[in-house]
Amino acid sequence: MNAIIISIGEELTTGQTVNTNSAYLARRLAERGIRTLEHCTVSDERAPVAAAIARAAESAEIVLVSGGLGPTEDDLTRHALADVLGTELLLDPKRLAHLEEWFRARGRAMADSNRVQAMVPRGAEAIDNRMGTAPGLAAVVKSAKVFIMPGVPSEMKVMYDEQIAPLLGEGAGAIAFKIVHTYGAGESDLGARIADLMRRGANPLVGTTVAAGLVSVRIEAHDRVPARAREMAAEMAAEVRRRLGELVVGEDEETLASVVGALLRKAGATLATAESCTGGMIGEMITGVSGSSEYYLGGVIAYDNRVKQELLGVGEAMLREHGAVSEPVAAAMAEGCRKRFASDWAIGVTGVAGPTGGTADKPVGLVYVALAGKGGTEVIRSQFPGTRDVIRVRASLMGLNMLRRKLL
Amino acid sequence: MNAIIISIGEELTTGQTVNTNSAYLARRLAERGIRTLEHCTVSDERAPVAAAIARAAESAEIVLVSGGLGPTEDDLTRHALADVLGTELLLDPKRLAHLEEWFRARGRAMADSNRVQAMVPRGAEAIDNRMGTAPGLAAVVKSAKVFIMPGVPSEMKVMYDEQIAPLLGEGAGAIAFKIVHTYGAGESDLGARIADLMRRGANPLVGTTVAAGLVSVRIEAHDRVPARAREMAAEMAAEVRRRLGELVVGEDEETLASVVGALLRKAGATLATAESCTGGMIGEMITGVSGSSEYYLGGVIAYDNRVKQELLGVGEAMLREHGAVSEPVAAAMAEGCRKRFASDWAIGVTGVAGPTGGTADKPVGLVYVALAGKGGTEVIRSQFPGTRDVIRVRASLMGLNMLRRKLL
Repeated sequence: MNAIIISIGEELTTGQTVNTNSAYLARRLAERGIRTLEHCTVSDERAPVAAAIARAAESAEIVLVSGGLGPTEDDLTRHALADVLGTELLLDPKRLAHLEEWFRARGRAMADSNRVQAMVPRGAEAIDNRMGTAPGLAAVVKSAKVFIMPGVPSEMKVMYDEQIAPLLGEGAGAIAFKIVHTYGAGESDLGARIADLMRRGANPLVGTTVAAGLVSVRIEAHDRVPARAREMAAEMAAEVRRRLGELVVGEDEETLASVVGALLRKAGATLATAESCTGGMIGEMITGVSGSSEYYLGGVIAYDNRVKQELLGVGEAMLREHGAVSEPVAAAMAEGCRKRFASDWAIGVTGVAGPTGGTADKPVGLVYVALAGKGGTEVIRSQFPGTRDVIRVRASLMGLNMLRRKLL
Repeated sequence: MNAIIISIGEELTTGQTVNTNSAYLARRLAERGIRTLEHCTVSDERAPVAAAIARAAESAEIVLVSGGLGPTEDDLTRHALADVLGTELLLDPKRLAHLEEWFRARGRAMADSNRVQAMVPRGAEAIDNRMGTAPGLAAVVKSAKVFIMPGVPSEMKVMYDEQIAPLLGEGAGAIAFKIVHTYGAGESDLGARIADLMRRGANPLVGTTVAAGLVSVRIEAHDRVPARAREMAAEMAAEVRRRLGELVVGEDEETLASVVGALLRKAGATLATAESCTGGMIGEMITGVSGSSEYYLGGVIAYDNRVKQELLGVGEAMLREHGAVSEPVAAAMAEGCRKRFASDWAIGVTGVAGPTGGTADKPVGLVYVALAGKGGTEVIRSQFPGTRDVIRVRASLMGLNMLRRKLL
């Protein structure tokens, strides 16, 4: 079974509001085994809305529409549905009474403009909205079931979950998702190692995406039986993990920080951080995990060189000779931090985050990340591409990943 | 001039990822007076992508596509463009050399699969991507200009802004946007102070949105003349600022951290931070601003109590008597930090970020934020609602805002 999701609103087409409704609906549909072919967003004008509904009804069995059911002049979705059905809007006395009751219960007078919300195209049915004044609408167009919901996310979600989902039935099967997160190889290297699993149209379907420095392998398994779909997804995730080995940092909701935290806890070891260009980002990532006080002692944000000297014991001569962005300084920061905090492990980071401050010798994106432990200190030099923010995220993940590999 | 925005990716159609690219592009187009008729999202399959491009080229003069330019087998957008053009993919030797150089500069070997990224449909042109390996593509389909960009938001934005926008020209009428960010009042309080400016259908149109601890006032002005639209939006922003006074923290791309940074620079003053529950987030926000080394010296992430004592000089007796989450400890952290870093200002934060660790006395969300300066130390006690992440963001913004108000 296939669906198309239509979102309506000038605030969406102009980009003032990011559309979160359609992702919500697509996930919900997928859980029922219904595949979303397309998301379509149009402004709240009568003709484009009607055209979008008519076109969707030709390619999909289910059409979910949200937005344009309000009481004002720019809410024209019900008119557009009437156009698609070739009928007119009729006042539904039961709906009107319901609407008047809604306002009465809240001690408010109903504005005349709200009457339009009791209008239903002939051939369509109204759907109760217990979160607001706009009832939804249901109709059959060609052979597609069309459902129209309010655009306000809290109203849309309740209406979909309580009233529309039960009418959809189950798709030919269920879709289960797994995500395997990796760090340390590019998308192409990774793809080469699982190319045979990434065939088009395969089940489970395997694909890769890049976000915030991690390359993630997405797995989507289809089966008539939901439990079997989940099992297939889990089996494929296990196969992907086998293929990718130590590149794999976690699954689904796991992050590098949560995985490193679990490994530190298991080892009974502690961590401290010394950050220059990342400015606290590594600490922020680590402490984003609840319970991190068990293994994270704290850190120094050593932005100024004097702080590197006074709090981390980096030598003035070393800073003068090699510069703040250098391998020896990264190592000295990590070692000084480990000593200062008496921690088992310490991460030190120094680099040029840009966009200004780069030189021919030390260009923007040059970062040294050091990991100090009982057995010594390792430093990795990287040249990261991207914006200031991307460079900082990549440097932070590099530090966490170096520790992860040591703890494995 | 009209545009259609097409986003490509199975992770988008299944709702695993919320689409932010298309809102970004629509805002940018609107600024040039180009109206977005429709946003369309399809999965990364050759035929639907080709159909979406062909259909869009029939209704709009500009078609912006993002996604599906990666090096793996599920990246088929360039093949789809070739289908639309009725041509085949050709290897562009210049592109290949460029790609090989990209990897060489980063000390990595290029995987064979990356070769596909040097393939360009006959009749199309490649667009440089200085943020990654996937070049964009430009072609004319019917009479529409079609531009294809990578799906990774950081790469897409730079390519659009630097290379595609200059090719688009200006539309007939313009939409100008302004956003005024506020801190310290709820959305309804704020709305009451500008209710008369928020009429539906007004021009400029004024609305409010809440995100990440800030309440923002959105302004959208329409006029045939771009300069006039911008002027109308700026006038309304000035009026909103007059009404909201010190609640206003900045406009558009400004953040609390960038505004505080500008004020510190203007005052020639320095800042250091002492963070417990925020774990480095304040430092991370401040150093997210390029040039922050001019006024930010660094900080201590004092997660463990011993760190509060040893690096910030918080007394053991004080910690025992009042507990780490207390007004005197927050003040002592800020004061100890100011002394340690010899900074003009220091922010100290201690609190219970949760979800565990709360008690009847000190529930989750209780945060003390201190600001120490030459004139003394101020501490604010807050009880923040929300998740661990929301509490940490709110605590960080509270610290920055206390400093902003002192510097005004």
